[in-house]
Amino acid sequence: MIKIKGKSRVVIENVQPQVEHGLYPAKRTIGERVDVTADIFGDGHDHLRASLLYKKANATRWLKVEMKGEINDSWRGSFYVTERGQYLFSVTAWVDHFETWYDGFKKKVAAKVDVRLELLEGIYFLKVLSTEQDEILSKAIRNLEGDYDKAVAYVLTTDFASLVHTYPLIEHETLYEKTLEIVVEHEKANFSTWYELFPRSASLDGGKHGTFKDVIRLLPRIASMGFDVLYLPPIHPIGKVNRKGKNNSVNAKPGEPGSPWAIGSDEGGHKSIHSELGTLVDYKKLIEEAKKQNIDIALDIAFQCAPDHPYVTEHPEWFKQRPDGSIQYAENPPKKYQDIYPFNFETDDWMELWVELKSVITYWIDQGVKIFRVDNPHTKPIPFWQWAIAEVNLEYPDIIFLAEAFTRPKIMSSLAKIGFTQSYTYFTWRVNKQEITEYMNELVSGPSRNYFRPNFWPNTPDILPYHLQHQGENIFIIRLALAATLASNYGIYGPAYEFYDNVPVTGREEYFDSEKYEIKRHDWKKTNRMTDIITLLNGARKNNDALQSTWNIQFCAIENPNLIAFLKATDDLSNIVLVVVNLEPNERQSGFVQLPKDRLKLGDRINVKVRDLITEENYTWTQEWNYVELDPYKMPFHLFNIELHESYM
Amino acid sequence: MIKIKGKSRVVIENVQPQVEHGLYPAKRTIGERVDVTADIFGDGHDHLRASLLYKKANATRWLKVEMKGEINDSWRGSFYVTERGQYLFSVTAWVDHFETWYDGFKKKVAAKVDVRLELLEGIYFLKVLSTEQDEILSKAIRNLEGDYDKAVAYVLTTDFASLVHTYPLIEHETLYEKTLEIVVEHEKANFSTWYELFPRSASLDGGKHGTFKDVIRLLPRIASMGFDVLYLPPIHPIGKVNRKGKNNSVNAKPGEPGSPWAIGSDEGGHKSIHSELGTLVDYKKLIEEAKKQNIDIALDIAFQCAPDHPYVTEHPEWFKQRPDGSIQYAENPPKKYQDIYPFNFETDDWMELWVELKSVITYWIDQGVKIFRVDNPHTKPIPFWQWAIAEVNLEYPDIIFLAEAFTRPKIMSSLAKIGFTQSYTYFTWRVNKQEITEYMNELVSGPSRNYFRPNFWPNTPDILPYHLQHQGENIFIIRLALAATLASNYGIYGPAYEFYDNVPVTGREEYFDSEKYEIKRHDWKKTNRMTDIITLLNGARKNNDALQSTWNIQFCAIENPNLIAFLKATDDLSNIVLVVVNLEPNERQSGFVQLPKDRLKLGDRINVKVRDLITEENYTWTQEWNYVELDPYKMPFHLFNIELHESYM
Repeated sequence: MIKIKGKSRVVIENVQPQVEHGLYPAKRTIGERVDVTADIFGDGHDHLRASLLYKKANATRWLKVEMKGEINDSWRGSFYVTERGQYLFSVTAWVDHFETWYDGFKKKVAAKVDVRLELLEGIYFLKVLSTEQDEILSKAIRNLEGDYDKAVAYVLTTDFASLVHTYPLIEHETLYEKTLEIVVEHEKANFSTWYELFPRSASLDGGKHGTFKDVIRLLPRIASMGFDVLYLPPIHPIGKVNRKGKNNSVNAKPGEPGSPWAIGSDEGGHKSIHSELGTLVDYKKLIEEAKKQNIDIALDIAFQCAPDHPYVTEHPEWFKQRPDGSIQYAENPPKKYQDIYPFNFETDDWMELWVELKSVITYWIDQGVKIFRVDNPHTKPIPFWQWAIAEVNLEYPDIIFLAEAFTRPKIMSSLAKIGFTQSYTYFTWRVNKQEITEYMNELVSGPSRNYFRPNFWPNTPDILPYHLQHQGENIFIIRLALAATLASNYGIYGPAYEFYDNVPVTGREEYFDSEKYEIKRHDWKKTNRMTDIITLLNGARKNNDALQSTWNIQFCAIENPNLIAFLKATDDLSNIVLVVVNLEPNERQSGFVQLPKDRLKLGDRINVKVRDLITEENYTWTQEWNYVELDPYKMPFHLFNIELHESYM
Repeated sequence: MIKIKGKSRVVIENVQPQVEHGLYPAKRTIGERVDVTADIFGDGHDHLRASLLYKKANATRWLKVEMKGEINDSWRGSFYVTERGQYLFSVTAWVDHFETWYDGFKKKVAAKVDVRLELLEGIYFLKVLSTEQDEILSKAIRNLEGDYDKAVAYVLTTDFASLVHTYPLIEHETLYEKTLEIVVEHEKANFSTWYELFPRSASLDGGKHGTFKDVIRLLPRIASMGFDVLYLPPIHPIGKVNRKGKNNSVNAKPGEPGSPWAIGSDEGGHKSIHSELGTLVDYKKLIEEAKKQNIDIALDIAFQCAPDHPYVTEHPEWFKQRPDGSIQYAENPPKKYQDIYPFNFETDDWMELWVELKSVITYWIDQGVKIFRVDNPHTKPIPFWQWAIAEVNLEYPDIIFLAEAFTRPKIMSSLAKIGFTQSYTYFTWRVNKQEITEYMNELVSGPSRNYFRPNFWPNTPDILPYHLQHQGENIFIIRLALAATLASNYGIYGPAYEFYDNVPVTGREEYFDSEKYEIKRHDWKKTNRMTDIITLLNGARKNNDALQSTWNIQFCAIENPNLIAFLKATDDLSNIVLVVVNLEPNERQSGFVQLPKDRLKLGDRINVKVRDLITEENYTWTQEWNYVELDPYKMPFHLFNIELHESYM
């Protein structure tokens, strides 16, 4: 019978956001709103009130926000996180006898019941609240003690209503059993625009092996299109043993460059640079030059080895030996991947292995890298990533880890929970209106909203999805517009996308003549309809705060199944974007799109200015439902900026 | 870096059943199955295996059950609880390299790959498994070491498959972070049949105030109808001050008996007996006589006082004083309930109040009561109930608390979580096919399945639902059949139900001339169509294990919206009941009902014997879809016992 707070009658349950019942922190980025909800209830008809408590972890004082009851005993309160680091929050609630009394008082007066006794009770509550000199309360007490009719009238004023609201009577409060954690990361975790290219194909002179210096020469082009992350596949020495040839053939011909993901040779391993790309000095120069153009260089982390990686001889204990003494290569029986040796994470020396792999990450951070794209994280132990990312975060702020976890949903989720900053998603295969709508609603309104930051890619060097195969420009533009507006993090495998590479290995979602196994010649000087649209889209993302969040989406009704429409708006409605995309690449589509009146706080008389940020056309809409028409050969999407007419705000 | 089990690569999440992430135990009753599910996954393509661990809390050894992977990384294992008390369970999982090897071996052989090295690996695993002398493993090793072709053929035998299954290679296992708890109660918590009557109306001689002796005389009637709980409204002295009269009138006329829920007078309080009902000796005699007929007497717990309750003068500190010195009566402004004083649970003497109220419960347990129906538990603090029920459970086994929590869903749920054994439900207002189906699916498949035991009541003295008002016999029979077959716990407010009392206070769901405020005259000798059907239904419940669980329901397709059909079956299919109810009380309805072939393990050739337990008619069904027809004036429901023909089992 110890420790029971017997007078506390309120129960608080199911406080959100909470990831795996508090095992992991929820994630936000600087400037984001945190909506805290809780189930709060007590016994009987007494009025309850509740506060959200929050603070930076290292702050001494808790800040308080009023929570409001919604339907079904659910309560809500919100705050904004404004600094990097760890925030804490919890919820407190109590039976408010003052508010209960006030509500009963009004009902009794309405029913013409004598309330003399109730006035005395009101005075009692006001005196309890008057712990310090307070002119408002003193005046209220005097009013209630005065003439009966005047006192009753006074209690019914809005002044008194606001007094009741301002002076909660906090007694016997219940504090939620746990303090929950939110980790707040820098803005780029939530808003980034990625471009991927193979540096060996970066030469302006098509025949030659590209270098970091060539990449530096491409920076103005990439920056002018509006990208702020440039991701290069592995830049390390490529294995020479069992090297793969063109189109993934088992044996490379002499002179073939091999796959950059077959890491390591006699020239070095994960901390070395492939000599044909340049030197460490060149790479650091690239990072520096990119930074000047507001671009971060993202490094690929692929924790696996070519057979001739130095680790194989220096640390044979990190690999699995077969009965004949050979080292176990990667396989998915009966397929063999003899150019790749996976680490054996069950080695007795797992701790040394973990420390070494972490040192690969910190080595590159020390060279200036702040963003890592992690290759196939789901083929290495989840506990390893949890440890490694936490260790890196302790030492270095603002590092981004993008998980290339194209795998089953629960594993993808788990990697996000345990620390990955962003993740590739199933967007690559969500094509029709229903698929896109359901997927977005799952990401934005499902439990993963609190830990999973999506990064949308219409293509990657590994994936030429079926819907892009043997298709013309329009579908590429449609998928780009969707990626760039649905998600605040998105990226493209650039040259293949810009120049509409649409030829697959027959029957597969893979590129024919894949750049993974050969040097490609790209016409880096060329611009086209795609590069223009990329530039416009990324410019719109930069200039419109509403496009810098994935979480603010609201789908709009539009009665054509080939048209998808969604609104993105900042909380204060200072920036509103309406996107309408024609999902049918070859036919003009039209329909009426419904403005979400509630979200836009529109009354019955509507007057909004609509400006297409791509075509620069202007409209004025005065109806809830508005006609749109999209000819994909002209432009398969609208990107409307919406301005609410002043008088209706 | 301490305490990391670096070689354990498996992640276990979301283990169920789990109530409020383990804050409360899950509930089961003796003989029930516990289905444990978990999300289990690791990195890469290695095969995982998992075990469910469970034991009685005081047992020393954990028992193990194999879990099996289902879709989307969800795993499942089950066990039966066979004893009262606390069980513990958890989940363990590991990467099974032996099974991974075996799967790869088969694929390689199928692809005609040489597997000499793989055979050596197989021998290695078999030797690792051979920690003790084991003839099966020794023989397997010899086989693998022998002739290549024979060895390969041997690995492909079902013998070897079963060896792999029987010998898990458990290495570096992951144990789920928590041990979870299940409380197992006695069978009656899950299967009980309630009859409610006002003992003051129990007289066979209609004019007189009924007594416990009269109730004893009614026991054979109640027992013959098949009830095993007889619930009496409060049996304590009724307040004389501000006593309510007929039809809830504010002032009773002289001689009016008042409401039994206005407890306490100068004659005593919650531990006393209303003298007109008899003595404590009579009450204990009633309990004893009832027990002989397999009936438990349920006591009403209503923690509130009439103004003349002894507590009011003995413990004024347990009530709220108003500024004029009067005691605060119950109110829901502007309504006043001046015959009831609620306890002030925020009194400084809350602990003394709690202890006294608990002593009321234990006092009656000491008199022989084992079942309590708790009046309006949601108007007393939830933490009080949590404490009181836990305290009682420590001292006394097998006490049932039925919560009359006709309140909002989260409060209803909370009371069940914190300890109430059973609860009244919204069944009373779930009438049409969709409402019933959705509600049952919520109860049986939603999270509340693990803590909320429903008790279905078609009526109570407080509730004559609209659909029963001014209606004839058929709707009463329909609602009875639904309550008795959907839920394993159900009850009726007996005399009003048997004799089709259908007259409300106009516009309200309340009885006119309610028995709450007056003594009623019932013709206790009368039997009718209803009493016959009650007898048949309760007999069927007693004789059919399938009807003794709420959790085994499966709705069956039937293409008529006025017909609802559901199957209930024991896990082993030794008892199967199919219920079809015509929800339209005045018209004959027909349709084809689909047998759930999967659940019944029926092949393409169907041959089942169907016997209506009410009409005793027999059928043989040889189709998946079978014609049924229900004339409500004959019988508005079928209660089929189904026997699967031997040869198709």
